Amino acid sequence: MQLPGRSRLLLLLLLRAGGLRAGERSSSAMEEIATEKEAEESHRQDSVSLLTFILLLTLTILTIWLFKHRRVRFLHETGLAMIYGLIVGVILRYGSPSSSGHDKPFSCSQEDRPFTTLLVNVSGKFFEYTLKGEISPGKIHNVEQNDMLRKVTFDPEVFFNILLPPIIFHAGYSLKKRHFFRNLGSILAYAFLGTAVSCFIIGNLMYGVVKLMKLVGQLSDKFYYTDCLLFGAVISATDPVTVLAIFNDLHADVDLYALLFGESVLNDAVAIVLSSSIVAYQPTGENTHAFDAAAFFKSVGVFLGIFSGSFMMGAVTGVVTALISFLFTKLHCFPLLETALFFLMSWSTFLLAEACGFTGVVAVLFCGITQAHYTYNNLSVESRSRTKQLFEVLHFLAENFIFSYMGLALFTFQKHIFSPIFIIGAFIAIFLGRAAHIYPLSFFLNLGRRHKISWNFQHMMMFSGLRGAMAFALAIRDTATYSHQMMFSTTLLIVFFTVWIIGGGTTPMLSWLNIRVGDHAPSVEEINESRWLYFRVGVDPDQDPPPSNDSFQVLQGDGPDSERGNRTKQESAWLFRLWYSFDHNYLKPILTHSGPPLTTTLPSCCGLLARCLTTPQVYDNQEQLREEDSDFILNDGDLTLTYGDTTITANGSSGSRTATTSLDGRKTKSSSEEALEHDLGMGDNEVTSRGTRLVFPLEDNA
Amino acid sequence: MQLPGRSRLLLLLLLRAGGLRAGERSSSAMEEIATEKEAEESHRQDSVSLLTFILLLTLTILTIWLFKHRRVRFLHETGLAMIYGLIVGVILRYGSPSSSGHDKPFSCSQEDRPFTTLLVNVSGKFFEYTLKGEISPGKIHNVEQNDMLRKVTFDPEVFFNILLPPIIFHAGYSLKKRHFFRNLGSILAYAFLGTAVSCFIIGNLMYGVVKLMKLVGQLSDKFYYTDCLLFGAVISATDPVTVLAIFNDLHADVDLYALLFGESVLNDAVAIVLSSSIVAYQPTGENTHAFDAAAFFKSVGVFLGIFSGSFMMGAVTGVVTALISFLFTKLHCFPLLETALFFLMSWSTFLLAEACGFTGVVAVLFCGITQAHYTYNNLSVESRSRTKQLFEVLHFLAENFIFSYMGLALFTFQKHIFSPIFIIGAFIAIFLGRAAHIYPLSFFLNLGRRHKISWNFQHMMMFSGLRGAMAFALAIRDTATYSHQMMFSTTLLIVFFTVWIIGGGTTPMLSWLNIRVGDHAPSVEEINESRWLYFRVGVDPDQDPPPSNDSFQVLQGDGPDSERGNRTKQESAWLFRLWYSFDHNYLKPILTHSGPPLTTTLPSCCGLLARCLTTPQVYDNQEQLREEDSDFILNDGDLTLTYGDTTITANGSSGSRTATTSLDGRKTKSSSEEALEHDLGMGDNEVTSRGTRLVFPLEDNA
Repeated sequence: MQLPGRSRLLLLLLLRAGGLRAGERSSSAMEEIATEKEAEESHRQDSVSLLTFILLLTLTILTIWLFKHRRVRFLHETGLAMIYGLIVGVILRYGSPSSSGHDKPFSCSQEDRPFTTLLVNVSGKFFEYTLKGEISPGKIHNVEQNDMLRKVTFDPEVFFNILLPPIIFHAGYSLKKRHFFRNLGSILAYAFLGTAVSCFIIGNLMYGVVKLMKLVGQLSDKFYYTDCLLFGAVISATDPVTVLAIFNDLHADVDLYALLFGESVLNDAVAIVLSSSIVAYQPTGENTHAFDAAAFFKSVGVFLGIFSGSFMMGAVTGVVTALISFLFTKLHCFPLLETALFFLMSWSTFLLAEACGFTGVVAVLFCGITQAHYTYNNLSVESRSRTKQLFEVLHFLAENFIFSYMGLALFTFQKHIFSPIFIIGAFIAIFLGRAAHIYPLSFFLNLGRRHKISWNFQHMMMFSGLRGAMAFALAIRDTATYSHQMMFSTTLLIVFFTVWIIGGGTTPMLSWLNIRVGDHAPSVEEINESRWLYFRVGVDPDQDPPPSNDSFQVLQGDGPDSERGNRTKQESAWLFRLWYSFDHNYLKPILTHSGPPLTTTLPSCCGLLARCLTTPQVYDNQEQLREEDSDFILNDGDLTLTYGDTTITANGSSGSRTATTSLDGRKTKSSSEEALEHDLGMGDNEVTSRGTRLVFPLEDNA
Repeated sequence: MQLPGRSRLLLLLLLRAGGLRAGERSSSAMEEIATEKEAEESHRQDSVSLLTFILLLTLTILTIWLFKHRRVRFLHETGLAMIYGLIVGVILRYGSPSSSGHDKPFSCSQEDRPFTTLLVNVSGKFFEYTLKGEISPGKIHNVEQNDMLRKVTFDPEVFFNILLPPIIFHAGYSLKKRHFFRNLGSILAYAFLGTAVSCFIIGNLMYGVVKLMKLVGQLSDKFYYTDCLLFGAVISATDPVTVLAIFNDLHADVDLYALLFGESVLNDAVAIVLSSSIVAYQPTGENTHAFDAAAFFKSVGVFLGIFSGSFMMGAVTGVVTALISFLFTKLHCFPLLETALFFLMSWSTFLLAEACGFTGVVAVLFCGITQAHYTYNNLSVESRSRTKQLFEVLHFLAENFIFSYMGLALFTFQKHIFSPIFIIGAFIAIFLGRAAHIYPLSFFLNLGRRHKISWNFQHMMMFSGLRGAMAFALAIRDTATYSHQMMFSTTLLIVFFTVWIIGGGTTPMLSWLNIRVGDHAPSVEEINESRWLYFRVGVDPDQDPPPSNDSFQVLQGDGPDSERGNRTKQESAWLFRLWYSFDHNYLKPILTHSGPPLTTTLPSCCGLLARCLTTPQVYDNQEQLREEDSDFILNDGDLTLTYGDTTITANGSSGSRTATTSLDGRKTKSSSEEALEHDLGMGDNEVTSRGTRLVFPLEDNA
């Protein structure tokens, strides 16, 4: 096997080279000093190249700020990061001297198959070498190419094992639960069926393109059907980042947001596992690339196994974390410990899944969702903000790093194969694949949905299928063969195109399609302020409202909310309702401090069990929380008005907004049906409360 | 050269092994599949061993919580982490099968000196190998030892390049500026002179021990004088962690805290650079370990060069960050960008220093101090807490990781050389070295200090010289030779002993020495609450008070504060006063939004320049801040009282404390002398405001 060219993990070299520096000093042979000097030099170069990336990111951040400040929307920050990456890539490619004579490869014959460790005897001294990978015979001369370009080339697994996990975890953790669950059926359909359809269609179309290229004589090496399918899987991973950041800024329709976000997040997981299963598709016998039913079903089995395994792994670690944070409630006094625990448990999900042979990234996604659903409720207020902020920063850095690396890779990756026919074919194929994914599925979903997915939503979903970090990471993972190199180069171009065009075109597209944008759209300042509010009064704007809330009148059905209330009631499928009531009545009480006490939800025959599981503390907590909520609202009505001013004083921002919220914790109905109604019916209000318009009802007539 | 045994960077393998997995699939040779399987297996093992560490940390966190909750003080968390590490080490050592036949070393002769890249031809296929390091001939059989032990052994440079920087940065960033600067002279004397004295004395004593060992016939290999000096440098690095955590919990005397903290933080930097210079001491000629004046002065030059270079590097990056955050004030609206920028700039300090050949860890320390002094003032309130929390988490994880790794290393490190004579000698030497460092220096310092360092303070400083992460990282950095292995084993034992004994004995020692403990000691809950307060009213308890504050009556000299006021006035040396007024009048106004406008501090001849540098905004800000401060106090007198309740409501903690602070922003005297007096005189009050006892004076008679 062969890693992409001279790919190196910078960090790794940084460390290893550093290790070389502190060498054995027992003999003062000049050659050793020379080796040491060289190692030191290499360490410095590593630092320089890592520094390049950091300065690149710094520059990106400052420009992002400028763009945000001036409300520039034609270019998203990820697009910007790519442009800076491109510029640096050009400089590195054409500005740096192109060779280094130091690392002359040395050939010596070995018997059977490569060892992972190699001891080499150099004039009486032994040196330890470790296996890096196979070099295909034609590429041997490449090994000693441009040193600087080699330095800035990362091991592709860095993306999978270091950069993607925080991005994906953050996606899961910041999932807007309410809308996600309301549209769960549609999202699952889009993610599973849609991705499979898209993968299959793109794969087949590309196979046609490859056939055509063979006819025209444009193909100089092998390109199998499985490669085409793999390309289909790789390029079917849509990016949850760019469009959604814009959606978030503009506060477009929440259902559309949930559909797009849910789809693109889950679809990443599906695409990863799909590509693994395609790779696992290895027909037996000599004709290695023909169809083989047994191998096909094995691949399907691999898909199901890996996916469900990773799902379980993520869910289980999430639940374990929830249990720990549930049992060790006194951890609240030590937000640092709580945050560290949360971080470690989430990371261990990744490692656990990898250790068991599942996919860490997928596990981390489901872990994030579970953590948000259960653990988050058990955290102290400070830990909630801390964990959010921590993963926000990690996500931000990782994402911008990947995108600027993409820009860089266009020039520094040394084995690009740009085939015009393949590229044009790929663009047409992803367009058709996306169309065949969205429109028919939406049609079938609309048969079952009461709240139809309208045409302009479908067009928007069609338009929003941009490719980003995940497609890139999947494509760069294996660039050993000719076909994979061509796929990688094409993927890179598709990412560029979609991020720049779609990222820039989202705002015009939304208005062109008449999609409701930001009626209550809070500005960035307002969001900041709502964070303030969150710190002050302990109300998290993203959080579930207290489980009882008659003032919304979802059930009564008068006012503009009624239609939505009815809709959501009938829309949600029985399966989902079943899950919801199970979750609300049993899981939430067991794992968190919210939800009704088990003693009220379990049938009376299980009374003993219920009493065992429901600690008095939980029961008290339940009551107490309710009490506190109402106290809090009564006490703080005018207090909050004062906060408005204080915020401005401390924050230095202008305007005197009244911070208000529609919370009322008086009458409690603990039936899961009502809670479901309430949760599902919160649609419009959630948008409202995402800003600062949290209205404390000062009158007591609720 | 040779890296310590089979040291590997887990992360590295994790990635590399992962890279192997996605191999070339163009030929379906069975052997390739076998190699791939092996790589996958290795990847899994890496995940498992990393998982081991994470579960270890999780366990440590839960136990720490238990200890904190029950207020157990006989064992500090770092000591706990070591114990868990020890247990896991024992299990790994004696519980896992002891050999693996896979990685058979392969010998082949090479001509001249080792290449960093090696191409090996295995039955027609080329594999790329990279140099790991030299193996001393006697140790070749070690290479193929216990696989599991090898997996859990990290590359020593991980400590220097990944784990130490966040710890050291956090130390610099959380330095209590006021007390640090008040005792700057003494701290510098302890750090520079003291460490040099300690290093020299320990080195010489150990040389005596080594001579003795040679006489007794206990020494089987070479042990040079420079090795002894290196040991002196390594073991002179005292740990800023454990004792100070206890001090912080107990709120012992602030001056003692400042002296100890400042000394141990700076002393780490000195020890690193000192050990580098000792390593750089390479006398010319054949007699390589005799004294050579030229080489000695070169070493001194190296010390000064590296130290000042790293210092400059750190200070400059800090100042640049301050300037960026100063110029891009609107970044306040985007705390995420601000935090990311701060993080990246701080990291770039490390890389920049490494790239220039200086010491990254030292640069990071001074960067942290500069960031705390200037940049911190320019950050938005949210970013202040975000950056603090981010580095707090990183620091916490890194520190506990290092300590549990230490426990592990006692059993998993495979080249321990425990020599009873050397160990006993070392214990005596560090005791004598510490004594020769503290008592004479304190005596000389007391000649110049008005506020003497009392005997019990000296005893406490003597007692508190425990060794921790830094000594370990320095010792493990180079374990290639016999002497270094012995030094490493001894260092490990010293760390264990000092952390457990001194860490556990601090509380009894403090009371035995009659050192004032926690008159105003806030409990953990109170600290949390003060954080709350900080979020709410934007008053950071650790922060400088507004630059004018007559109510303390430092100058008037009546009341109990007067003595301290006079003392601090005369105590601070002219050099420090010079620096202070320069900093206050010029640097702070240029780099931050605090301090007087330049137009008032620069001489009139520079009026134009001053007006250029002082943007109207700054001037306005100055006025505005002052206005806001006083407004804020007037408005929020009763508000804060209400906050007290709210905190408790939201936090769930008990007790109704009145949140009060002694801030009064009325009369402003911008002379640097007064500000200095005020800053220096704040001693007692700072302790107060570190808790929640921030007293808003409700009466207006200040």
